[in-house]
Amino acid sequence: MFGNQALFWLILPKWLYYTAQSKEDLTQTKYGDLLSGEISQKAGEGASHTPDRNQLQMELLHKRMGRVKHKIAVISGKGGVGKSLVTVNLAVALAMRGRNGRVGVLDADIHGPSVPKMMGLKEARLHTGPPGTFPAIGPLNVKVVSMAFLLPSAEDPVIWRGPLKMTAIRQFLSDIVWGDLYVLLIDLPPGTGDEPLSVAQLLPEMDGVVIVTIPSEVSQVVVRKAVTFARKLGMPIIGVVENMSGFICPKCGTRFDIFQSGGGQKIASEMNVPFLGSIPIDQKICKDSDEGIPFIIKHSDSLASKSFMELVNKIEDFLKAKS
Amino acid sequence: MFGNQALFWLILPKWLYYTAQSKEDLTQTKYGDLLSGEISQKAGEGASHTPDRNQLQMELLHKRMGRVKHKIAVISGKGGVGKSLVTVNLAVALAMRGRNGRVGVLDADIHGPSVPKMMGLKEARLHTGPPGTFPAIGPLNVKVVSMAFLLPSAEDPVIWRGPLKMTAIRQFLSDIVWGDLYVLLIDLPPGTGDEPLSVAQLLPEMDGVVIVTIPSEVSQVVVRKAVTFARKLGMPIIGVVENMSGFICPKCGTRFDIFQSGGGQKIASEMNVPFLGSIPIDQKICKDSDEGIPFIIKHSDSLASKSFMELVNKIEDFLKAKS
Repeated sequence: MFGNQALFWLILPKWLYYTAQSKEDLTQTKYGDLLSGEISQKAGEGASHTPDRNQLQMELLHKRMGRVKHKIAVISGKGGVGKSLVTVNLAVALAMRGRNGRVGVLDADIHGPSVPKMMGLKEARLHTGPPGTFPAIGPLNVKVVSMAFLLPSAEDPVIWRGPLKMTAIRQFLSDIVWGDLYVLLIDLPPGTGDEPLSVAQLLPEMDGVVIVTIPSEVSQVVVRKAVTFARKLGMPIIGVVENMSGFICPKCGTRFDIFQSGGGQKIASEMNVPFLGSIPIDQKICKDSDEGIPFIIKHSDSLASKSFMELVNKIEDFLKAKS
Repeated sequence: MFGNQALFWLILPKWLYYTAQSKEDLTQTKYGDLLSGEISQKAGEGASHTPDRNQLQMELLHKRMGRVKHKIAVISGKGGVGKSLVTVNLAVALAMRGRNGRVGVLDADIHGPSVPKMMGLKEARLHTGPPGTFPAIGPLNVKVVSMAFLLPSAEDPVIWRGPLKMTAIRQFLSDIVWGDLYVLLIDLPPGTGDEPLSVAQLLPEMDGVVIVTIPSEVSQVVVRKAVTFARKLGMPIIGVVENMSGFICPKCGTRFDIFQSGGGQKIASEMNVPFLGSIPIDQKICKDSDEGIPFIIKHSDSLASKSFMELVNKIEDFLKAKS
């Protein structure tokens, strides 16, 4: 019954967006409706004739999300700590364990989507059929949706203010044909602004959040904010992951704590949240990400992969305890 | 004449912010007016009786910013690439060259401010006098303003939607007594959303932007967006800095390109923008940042510092050419 309602269109105040070619050309956004093929048709009817679009979209969101058993958000206070890396490898690890085709990833980083590149889906696009828009398919049939799939080219920035980002995230949750999933992982941009707030408000049934950090104190200051954020919004904290935890010289074997050490464990204990584990620095990880192959597939025997799988076990235990 | 107008207050719609202790308590933000000591007095007058506050604030902004010779924004597509590190050390380097007290840093990362910690100003607060609110004073009398100075504790997240962030940035530019500066460096959060867009729109006279990246391809995808963003908004691009460029094992001397190599140079040449230089990975940098001492002060003889000073020379040349 909601099939056709998936094709919404939006009326957006002009100050919200900036997708124009020049400073002066602030006219119409080309991403006004992200997923619809019937924009012009519906737009012709005029806003007042459409019966409460927002309500219909929220109903559709609840219907679609009702078929997703678990929802996990991956967050961090600070950027560049490896949120997307954790999300992508976690998705693949969960899919490996008998859930081929039943794991989804929503890349909710509207400005800096990096999930597609890490999953070898750089050139992917979303396709729309009668029931709605279908996710792209990554390794082990992980279903992936990202803003990157909607941009004309990778060079195009999405110059949007917050409310438009909320609308985009709502559409990603409501208008995408996610199907029956065991888990949907949501990769959020750093910070505690529009995107994480929108996801928290749109999915109050969230199972929990995984918080990613690096060991440095500068990063710790910011990760505390992420913990407080999750608590204030009532999202359970699955635990803290420490990424970039020490570098072992491949030649002489000496360990160097480039970004200091032990910060993740320390903060987890101070903030009284579980510590899920640490992932060492490994050149291969960066190379694998650049090549679009999750490192737990490409280098499954590495120390990083082994550390990662321990972390996956803890997340599995958390989800099983909730089932 | 504008002294008293510095004390503005704001009327904010409720959906913009979330600073409440519980999910239900979405009443009044404690940061509604960031810098004013006369909120309640003015608020009592009612909105309609205050003659065009926005216009007065913009006049004040132009007056204050008119005394700042150069404005540079430090941006990146992706987080965690070292924007704040570059900003802080650039500020100190410029101050060292005979501009003690005439360099300012605006930390415009509302959600994840890390400038204060890196400058040893973790405990600093802003103080307000008759002409307005005064910046905190860092090494070499660099004037620093950050959201961190307004928060009750470092654990408090700023759970704000975009429009409120724009308001905060406008207040930072208009209500702070910056004084006569040679240069104001603005450290922006990653992405191309509210904060960078606000700064670009509030300061159309911006001298230019410095774009920071790390060598990885994943990061390059996103830095392209930053270049396009700057171009679309008419901000000159001073150049690209590559941070975390290779790690030399302190024990055996072997070089490892942990985050790949040459990405910064490659992207600069592909996007036809100047390449300013690269900063190698150095454990000491992270440690110095954690201790609140810019590495170009603490480890001025390191390879990283030497590389950094070359980069500063290029930025100086750019500014001199504009003078």
